[in-house]
Amino acid sequence: MKKFDRNIYLSNMELHEAKKLFFDEIDKINKYVSTETIPTIDSMGRITTRAVFANSSSPHYNASAMDGICVKASSTYGADERNPVKLLLNEDFIYVDTGDPIMPPYDAVIMIEDVMEIDNNNVKIMKPAYPWQHIRPVGEDMVAGEMIIPSFKRIHPVDIGAMLCGQVLEVEVSKRPMVGLIPTGTEIVEPHDELSPGKIIESNSRVFENLVKEYGGISNRYPPVIDNMNLIEKAILRACDENDIVIINAGSSAGTEDYTSTIIKNIGKLLVHGIAIKPGKPTILGIVNDTPVIGIPGYPVSAFLSFEEFVKPLVHKFLSLKDKKKKLLKATLSKKIVSSLKHKEFVRMKIGKVEDKFIATPLNRGAGVTMSLVRADGILKIPQELEGIQGGKTVEVELLKDKNEIENTIVSIGSHDLILDILSNIISKTHNNIFLSSAHVGSLGGIMSMKRGEAHMAPIHLLDELTGTYNESYIKKYLKNKDMVLIKGIKRQQGFILQKNNPKNIKVFEDLLNKDLVFVNRQKGSGTRVLLDYNLKKLGLDSSLIRGYEREMTTHMNVASCVLSGSAHVGVGVKSVANTMNLDFIPIGLEDYDFLVPKKFIDTHMINNFISILKSQEFKDELENLGGYEMEDIQIVEV
Amino acid sequence: MKKFDRNIYLSNMELHEAKKLFFDEIDKINKYVSTETIPTIDSMGRITTRAVFANSSSPHYNASAMDGICVKASSTYGADERNPVKLLLNEDFIYVDTGDPIMPPYDAVIMIEDVMEIDNNNVKIMKPAYPWQHIRPVGEDMVAGEMIIPSFKRIHPVDIGAMLCGQVLEVEVSKRPMVGLIPTGTEIVEPHDELSPGKIIESNSRVFENLVKEYGGISNRYPPVIDNMNLIEKAILRACDENDIVIINAGSSAGTEDYTSTIIKNIGKLLVHGIAIKPGKPTILGIVNDTPVIGIPGYPVSAFLSFEEFVKPLVHKFLSLKDKKKKLLKATLSKKIVSSLKHKEFVRMKIGKVEDKFIATPLNRGAGVTMSLVRADGILKIPQELEGIQGGKTVEVELLKDKNEIENTIVSIGSHDLILDILSNIISKTHNNIFLSSAHVGSLGGIMSMKRGEAHMAPIHLLDELTGTYNESYIKKYLKNKDMVLIKGIKRQQGFILQKNNPKNIKVFEDLLNKDLVFVNRQKGSGTRVLLDYNLKKLGLDSSLIRGYEREMTTHMNVASCVLSGSAHVGVGVKSVANTMNLDFIPIGLEDYDFLVPKKFIDTHMINNFISILKSQEFKDELENLGGYEMEDIQIVEV
Repeated sequence: MKKFDRNIYLSNMELHEAKKLFFDEIDKINKYVSTETIPTIDSMGRITTRAVFANSSSPHYNASAMDGICVKASSTYGADERNPVKLLLNEDFIYVDTGDPIMPPYDAVIMIEDVMEIDNNNVKIMKPAYPWQHIRPVGEDMVAGEMIIPSFKRIHPVDIGAMLCGQVLEVEVSKRPMVGLIPTGTEIVEPHDELSPGKIIESNSRVFENLVKEYGGISNRYPPVIDNMNLIEKAILRACDENDIVIINAGSSAGTEDYTSTIIKNIGKLLVHGIAIKPGKPTILGIVNDTPVIGIPGYPVSAFLSFEEFVKPLVHKFLSLKDKKKKLLKATLSKKIVSSLKHKEFVRMKIGKVEDKFIATPLNRGAGVTMSLVRADGILKIPQELEGIQGGKTVEVELLKDKNEIENTIVSIGSHDLILDILSNIISKTHNNIFLSSAHVGSLGGIMSMKRGEAHMAPIHLLDELTGTYNESYIKKYLKNKDMVLIKGIKRQQGFILQKNNPKNIKVFEDLLNKDLVFVNRQKGSGTRVLLDYNLKKLGLDSSLIRGYEREMTTHMNVASCVLSGSAHVGVGVKSVANTMNLDFIPIGLEDYDFLVPKKFIDTHMINNFISILKSQEFKDELENLGGYEMEDIQIVEV
Repeated sequence: MKKFDRNIYLSNMELHEAKKLFFDEIDKINKYVSTETIPTIDSMGRITTRAVFANSSSPHYNASAMDGICVKASSTYGADERNPVKLLLNEDFIYVDTGDPIMPPYDAVIMIEDVMEIDNNNVKIMKPAYPWQHIRPVGEDMVAGEMIIPSFKRIHPVDIGAMLCGQVLEVEVSKRPMVGLIPTGTEIVEPHDELSPGKIIESNSRVFENLVKEYGGISNRYPPVIDNMNLIEKAILRACDENDIVIINAGSSAGTEDYTSTIIKNIGKLLVHGIAIKPGKPTILGIVNDTPVIGIPGYPVSAFLSFEEFVKPLVHKFLSLKDKKKKLLKATLSKKIVSSLKHKEFVRMKIGKVEDKFIATPLNRGAGVTMSLVRADGILKIPQELEGIQGGKTVEVELLKDKNEIENTIVSIGSHDLILDILSNIISKTHNNIFLSSAHVGSLGGIMSMKRGEAHMAPIHLLDELTGTYNESYIKKYLKNKDMVLIKGIKRQQGFILQKNNPKNIKVFEDLLNKDLVFVNRQKGSGTRVLLDYNLKKLGLDSSLIRGYEREMTTHMNVASCVLSGSAHVGVGVKSVANTMNLDFIPIGLEDYDFLVPKKFIDTHMINNFISILKSQEFKDELENLGGYEMEDIQIVEV
């Protein structure tokens, strides 16, 4: 396919304008919410479309509130300890259980604990009853005609109980809209199909199905459609017949095989193609046969954000559900974010609470990085008119997680290692309500975060080129006035990560200068980079002669991935990663992988728990399992 | 039945002790959580029982990140505006769409916007590409072996997407426990059965079914069992066979027909019968055939609270789900609560935010008042060792509703009228995120709340005995130093509420002294009581001669209920209530029903909305519909 077959220019409509255009158009065709009357017992989670009034009072008769006897109050007057009043069964009193109806001539209940039995037919009492004592009068709970719940309210379990008490057996609620989901793309396959390069498992519609469920709609996923204009058109027309809302994913961009906008233009009304948001720009909004149709972009993060922005309010509109106010949290931005004037940007944020301050750090901003959504604690929306936000500024983040969970999270910023995943998992398993979140910015990045007070902990492994020792000299240099401790005891094997069977026969640092080789590097400030540069310098090797020295990855895993996929022949990283990815490994040396912690945090509940996990047998077993580590006694060393 | 057949003394074990005893016993018999492996696409909301690691990297091949052409970077070097580089199709470049795999010898992508087409086989470019530009390397999103989500995490939609990207097609999760629900009681009937006095619709198990769903379990309701020891025993044994947890409701107390504890003692292990909580004391905890069995009390509020206290953590235990920390809100207690040293008390609270202060007011504390749960914004737990809490103290309330909803609620405290339900419903319908909550404490109570700064608004109708005018003199007396306004314009008909066809032939106040008559009164401080006493005084009638003058109800509806159910022949109240309940009515007079508001609130968003609703046609129509009101122009009068 060629350039001229493509529609490469999308519009760049502002988000609020696109929403207004779309929802105004829907208002024209769909003015009335559909309602249905359903049994009260099946109404949990549904939204009332009119107020619910009690059909009957509750209790609907005068009921005994106690187990005991019911009496005529007037026949008990004058009773006291010295002059008990004697009462005759079926004449002066009858026995009642809680809930039994109280009928004339009886007008009071005496609890069983206050009744002394004389014989089978007679009892005595020591104090008088007052009229209506221990009787639940008709309507004590609710009175016929009283409102139980108002319109447009979500029905909770207790509401169902109350409606039944008021003899409301049916309730009018909004109909759940049916949302048709059409996955498209020649590249997508279903979960158990074979995967070859260029093919991917269709995952977006699986996220959508569950989001629709969360919103309160019914999802209706169609089988994937290949990139064929005719087939996609047929699928859309059918879906518009069978659903209240139709979603097409993907084909919303401007590639050779992106047909959606053209189809909607042909068979319906294309309202918007291209919105000034990032990710999510190539969103399509239209109407086909009076049905709202939304083209959602293909990148998973764009897909999620665009879906939340447009499909959620639309489903809520059908449900007559008020949009809840978003939960916002004020946090300090840990580093500068540059954004463009071309769009409003949605940045996934990791948030931690260090001392009294919430710190928000941007996660990977790539539209294809689903893990940025899995890891995100919130979304920062940067308005279009800002070119970015300075580090240190206070921002408002829309929360995706509980504030409570954020408050109980150990914030670790620093060097990457597989054991952080393992520690996070053991913490999740062992300790209620403590979590570990790790950001991977390299060892020096970790020390700088510590300096700015943005983390509880920084895993570091920085070699001092002069002394050949680890970490302490860096801390003394960068964190002069801070009382810090190192949690020491873990050593890990660093070395060359190589393709299986080492086809290029790499053995020593000198081999990296080989013109046939492509190397992949780590970022500046990472301990692994320091280790590499230290060795190159010691051997007098010129790094500019190494092909690929400029290509920087931020984790061991990404370095190993490059080697595995063939985009590099060699990189430097830890043995555990080479093991996990079944690659070859030649050791360079053993290094200290320490956890740097401000002294004031060392006795906190969270860090105490962390240390006890480092000392646990489970963690030792997991290290053993990974390979490439040596474990000594865990020690706390003041620096 | 007689006293001696009853087991009237329950134990009074402290809550934490009862929980420990019960859960320790369950740990003995049920050490391991059951797990199951299910398709990832069906795993929404389930809880992982082990960490989920990526089976494959994502992307699993080097993928184009753009629509454009892929090239060998080396063949583009040197390109600039004046010296464009010409590239030949299938030799120097090929066209690619986003997501297409990039294979050797190509190692860079140029976006289509930067490509100029010369003819069908040739393009030119104006700037060089650097290696790996616009290529998503293998593992950019996640790397094989990387943890996607840890153990014991609830699976969200985005997690499903990420797992599919990592080619994780199945996931190990905890099994949902099956909770058997056995309603018992000869008095209960199913929703569409006939209701006679003494019969009630079984509602508790319908609340339980939905609570179990909310907790994450599967509910399994059995048909109701009558109060027959043998039948209940059979039902329990069968349910213990078929479920992970068994709930019996009710029969947990000490009435003649409360068999549960005896049965559990006979066929299993009775651990606890009677817990020091209110409501909820007669809860039973036991084990039958290695299945936890809980006897839940019958009063709906006791039932709900006991269920939340015991069944929720039990279901969560089966699910390996961490109990979330409760959401607490600090609020000022609006009035004294007296509690007993005999139990920990759970008080349902209404919360409002007036200016910057959250104010918490206890709702009806009756164990049978389901509406107290429907209306509650939170629960205040008063420890056993406290005899009560003084008004004005700061308390921590466990929230049942969103703080946001509480913050956007108009707090009305004062006189009761049916129109408050109507206003609440119209507000709910018309205005996003504004709510109206009404507490009914009478007109004078409303003025006192205003004095203490606990409400935004007080509906009042207080007749000045001297002048015959309404409200203003009371405000001047009790709210001397406060700037207040009255929202005026609604007048309502007060009068005698009488049995249908007025069998006792009541016509004037003098008739109330008739010995054959039973009257029902309103509480002191209510405007209706003031109106009654004013008339009695004016006519020189002795109130002590009126039978039932001491029996006080707090709303018009409750007065009318007493008349309807025959426990009184006459009361004083508004015409709309008599109409709604189909009772007779003889007018006494028309009174001003005004809304008292501090002047500083009158221009707030919330009160503005309230006033616009008072002026709306919808409200006028509803008043017309109810009958008994006269509407004038709505006016704001400074007092």
